Amino acid sequence: MNAPVAGADLAELSMTEAADAFARGEVRAEALVRACLARIEAHDSKVNSVVRLDREAALEAAAAQDRARAAGQTLGPLAGAPMMHKDMYYRAGKVSTCGSKIRADFVPKVTATVLERLDAAGAIDMGTLNMAEFAQNPTGHNAHLGHCHNPWGLDYCTGGSSSGSGAGVAARFFTAALGSDTGGSIRLPATICGVTGLKATQTRVSRHGVMPLSFSCDNVGPLVRTARDAARFLRVTAGRDPKDPTSAAEPVPDYEAALTGSVKGMKIAVCETYFLDGADAPVVAAFEAALATLREAGAEVTRIAAPSLRAIAAYTALVSRVEGAAIHANWMREHPGDYAIHLSARLYGGYPIPAHLYVEGLSRRGPLLRQFVAEALTGHDLVATPTLRTRVPTLAETDIDADPANWSRFMAVSANTRPFNYLGLPTVSIPCGFDDRGLPVGLQLAGRPFAEATVLRAADAFQQMTDWHRRAPVL
Amino acid sequence: MNAPVAGADLAELSMTEAADAFARGEVRAEALVRACLARIEAHDSKVNSVVRLDREAALEAAAAQDRARAAGQTLGPLAGAPMMHKDMYYRAGKVSTCGSKIRADFVPKVTATVLERLDAAGAIDMGTLNMAEFAQNPTGHNAHLGHCHNPWGLDYCTGGSSSGSGAGVAARFFTAALGSDTGGSIRLPATICGVTGLKATQTRVSRHGVMPLSFSCDNVGPLVRTARDAARFLRVTAGRDPKDPTSAAEPVPDYEAALTGSVKGMKIAVCETYFLDGADAPVVAAFEAALATLREAGAEVTRIAAPSLRAIAAYTALVSRVEGAAIHANWMREHPGDYAIHLSARLYGGYPIPAHLYVEGLSRRGPLLRQFVAEALTGHDLVATPTLRTRVPTLAETDIDADPANWSRFMAVSANTRPFNYLGLPTVSIPCGFDDRGLPVGLQLAGRPFAEATVLRAADAFQQMTDWHRRAPVL
Repeated sequence: MNAPVAGADLAELSMTEAADAFARGEVRAEALVRACLARIEAHDSKVNSVVRLDREAALEAAAAQDRARAAGQTLGPLAGAPMMHKDMYYRAGKVSTCGSKIRADFVPKVTATVLERLDAAGAIDMGTLNMAEFAQNPTGHNAHLGHCHNPWGLDYCTGGSSSGSGAGVAARFFTAALGSDTGGSIRLPATICGVTGLKATQTRVSRHGVMPLSFSCDNVGPLVRTARDAARFLRVTAGRDPKDPTSAAEPVPDYEAALTGSVKGMKIAVCETYFLDGADAPVVAAFEAALATLREAGAEVTRIAAPSLRAIAAYTALVSRVEGAAIHANWMREHPGDYAIHLSARLYGGYPIPAHLYVEGLSRRGPLLRQFVAEALTGHDLVATPTLRTRVPTLAETDIDADPANWSRFMAVSANTRPFNYLGLPTVSIPCGFDDRGLPVGLQLAGRPFAEATVLRAADAFQQMTDWHRRAPVL
Repeated sequence: MNAPVAGADLAELSMTEAADAFARGEVRAEALVRACLARIEAHDSKVNSVVRLDREAALEAAAAQDRARAAGQTLGPLAGAPMMHKDMYYRAGKVSTCGSKIRADFVPKVTATVLERLDAAGAIDMGTLNMAEFAQNPTGHNAHLGHCHNPWGLDYCTGGSSSGSGAGVAARFFTAALGSDTGGSIRLPATICGVTGLKATQTRVSRHGVMPLSFSCDNVGPLVRTARDAARFLRVTAGRDPKDPTSAAEPVPDYEAALTGSVKGMKIAVCETYFLDGADAPVVAAFEAALATLREAGAEVTRIAAPSLRAIAAYTALVSRVEGAAIHANWMREHPGDYAIHLSARLYGGYPIPAHLYVEGLSRRGPLLRQFVAEALTGHDLVATPTLRTRVPTLAETDIDADPANWSRFMAVSANTRPFNYLGLPTVSIPCGFDDRGLPVGLQLAGRPFAEATVLRAADAFQQMTDWHRRAPVL
C-alpha cells in the first residue's frame, strides 16, 4: 500500500499513494503537480483529454499546501493529489462547456457540491476534461472538442462519456477525475482505458451543480487507479446535500477501513445469460481468469439465471432518453444545428415517446429492483460481469456520424453497464486483463443498495492479488 | 362544542359530537348507528349514495363498543362515530368496485392503512359509497352505479369524484366519509353538498391500499361536518406509513388543540385573478360575505395578484391525465367498452401526450410551488377562494355522455381546486352560504406545506361564527 516514493516517477503514484506520501512529508505537492503537468505537456497532443489546463493556479495551490504543511498544519485526506474533472462540473465563474458547442461559453453561477467537497479535502484541481457532447455517447467521440484517444492505442475509442477522465487517468496525467455515469459513462472509459471507475448507489453522491442528463439515472463518481482511491474519493464526496433534495441521507461509512484485502467467504453470482451474450472470446477469457483468481482467494462463485435483464436495459434507455429529451427541448428547438448529427438524431427520437410508457418505466423500477435483489443479490454479495462484452472498438468502428451502420456496435458498448443505472446499484469496474489487440478488459462488480463497502472490498482484494491496475500504456 | 344530546336527532350530531357524547356515556354507539341507518333507509333511494351497506356488521360493532364501554374500557377518539367510505378504500376480502364495471367483482387482498387507522381509533364502518368511475370525474355522474343526487336538490350534481361521501354526510347518513382528491374530488362534493372537506398536504396521509389515479396528485382525506371533525380525523389518519414509501415523516401535531376559535391577526390573501374569473354573482356575494366575517373577527384580508395559476392548473391536468392513462393502459387495451364513454374518451387523450412534456410538468412543480409560496403565502398565512366558481350545476348541465357541449362546464368545475393538487398544499372547503337556487357555496382556504393546523384553525373559527355548516337539507 505504501509504495516507495524516492526515485519513482511521481506521476505513477495513485491518488491515495500521492496523498499519503504528501501527508508523510515524503513528497511536495508542487512536485506532484509538476510531474502531472510534464506528462500532459508531453503527451496530451496525442490523447486530447484536456479542455482547460489551469497550470498556474494548480502550481500556486500546490505551493500553498506545501507551505501549510511546512507550517505544521494538517491538511485534508486528498491534499497533494492532482485532479482534473469532466467539463460538466460547475465552478462558479469558470466556463463549463459540457462537451458542447451550445455551452461553449457557459459560465455557471454555482459550484458543484462535489467540487466543494474535493476542495475541502485538499484535492488540487488542474482543470477540465474532454467528454462526449452533453455526456450523451458511450464512446468518447466529440465533434466539437475533437475525439479523445485511447492511450493504449490511439486509433481506439476511450469509452464515454467521461472520455478525458478515463484517458487522462490511464495516461498518468492526474491521479483522479470525476466522471458521470447515466448508462456506463464512468465504468466504460474505466474499463476501456484500463483504470478503476466507481458508480455508487443512485443518490449516494450529490448532483448539485452538475449538468443533468437524466434525473433518474445520473450518477457522480471517480475514475482513479485503485479501489482504495475510489474508497477515499467516495468517502469525501458522498452524503446528504441540502442543495440536492434527491441525495440520500444514509450515513457514509469509512470505506477504506472496509478494505480488508480478503474475499474469503464472499459469494459472487455470475449471470449466465445477458451479460455474456455475444461476448468476444478474449473478454470471456480474461473474465473467467478473474473469477478463478477470486475463487482461489476464497470467494464462492455461482452461475445463476439473470432475471429480466433485457427489460431492465430497455427501461434504462427509455427513462434516460425521455429525460434527456426533456432537458434539451428548448435548445433542440432553437439550436438543432449546434448538436452533432448523431446526438440530434438520438434526441429527436425521444420526443414522440408517449408519457404513459415513461410512467411505466418509472413504475417498474421498484419491482424490478426488488426482483433482481431477490434473485441475484440475496444469496450472493456481488454480481460479476465483464464491464464491456466486446473487445475495445476503434474510433472508426463506432463512429455513427461517419456511418450509421456502426449503430449496433455503438449501442452494444453500454449493454453491460446500463442495467445498473436503472437498478441504481453500486458498481465498480476494475482492470482484469488485456484482449488480443492489447487493449484493457474490465471486471464489473455490482452490490446491494448502499453496499459500496462490499463492492470496494472485493475490488481492492482483487487488486492486491493482481497488477493489471499497475500497468501503464506507453505513449 | 358539546351540543346537547338528550332529545336531539342523533344523526344530527357531527363526528366529534357523536364520539364525545359516546365517550361521556351520554349516548350508546348502537343508537348512533341506528339513527344513521334510519336516515339511509328513509332517504338513500333518492340520493343513491350507498354502494354496500354492512348493516348487521355495523350494529354488532356498535354493540361491542357499548359493552366495552360499560365494562370500563377506554376506546379510541372515534369510537361511536358511524362512517362509510368511498368505494376505493380496500378492505381485504371485501369487494371494492372503484365505481367501475371493470372492478365490479374486485376483492382486494390488502386493507388500506387509513382504514386500519380508523378501525384502531374506534370508527364504525357501515359500508361503501358511490363515486365517479375510477374517481375520474368532478361531478358525480356514474354510468354503472347510477348518478348520485344532491340532497339539497335532487336534479343537481353532488360534485365528484367522492359523490356519495359528500351527499351522505350532507344527508346525515353517517358522520364522516373518506373521499380522495386528485383535482378537487374531496373539496368539490364538500362545497356542492354543503359539508366540510379536507385535502391535506400531498403525502401527509398514507395511500397504501387505495385505488390510484395519479401518484403525483392523489390525496386521502375526510368529508365531515366541521373543521373540528376534520382535525380529529386527520390526526388519526396522518403520518408516516412504511407501506407507502411516499408518505411524509413529518410529525403529526394535535390539530384539535390548535383550534383556538380565533383568526385574530391572521393574514389572508385573495388572488384577484384566476379564482374569480367568470365567477357567478351569488358565489362572489357569499365569498365576499365570508371574507367580511373573517375580517370582522380580526383577520387581515389582502388582495394580491395570482402568480402562474393558469400554468399550474394546466400542469395538474397534464400530470394526472398521463398517470391515469398509464394506470389504465392494460384495461384500456382489453376492456375499452367497459368504461363510460366520457371516461374512455378522456383516457384515450392521455396516451399520445409526449413524455418530455410530462417530465416538464414534474420538473416545474418545485419552482412553481416555491414561487406560489413566495408570492402568496410568505406574507400571508392563507389563500382564500370560492371552492367552486359557479353556482352548483345540475346533473343534466354537466352530463358529457349525453351532450359533449357540456364539456366546458364540466371542466370548469375543478378550476379552483385543481391548482392545489399540483402545488400539494393543504386545503379545506367549508360551507359559507347558499346561491340563488338554494344550493351551497363553499369557501376554500389553502395554507403552506404541512400547515394543516393553520388551515383548520381558520375554518373552525369561521364555523364558530356562522351556522352554514349546521344547515341540513330537507329530504
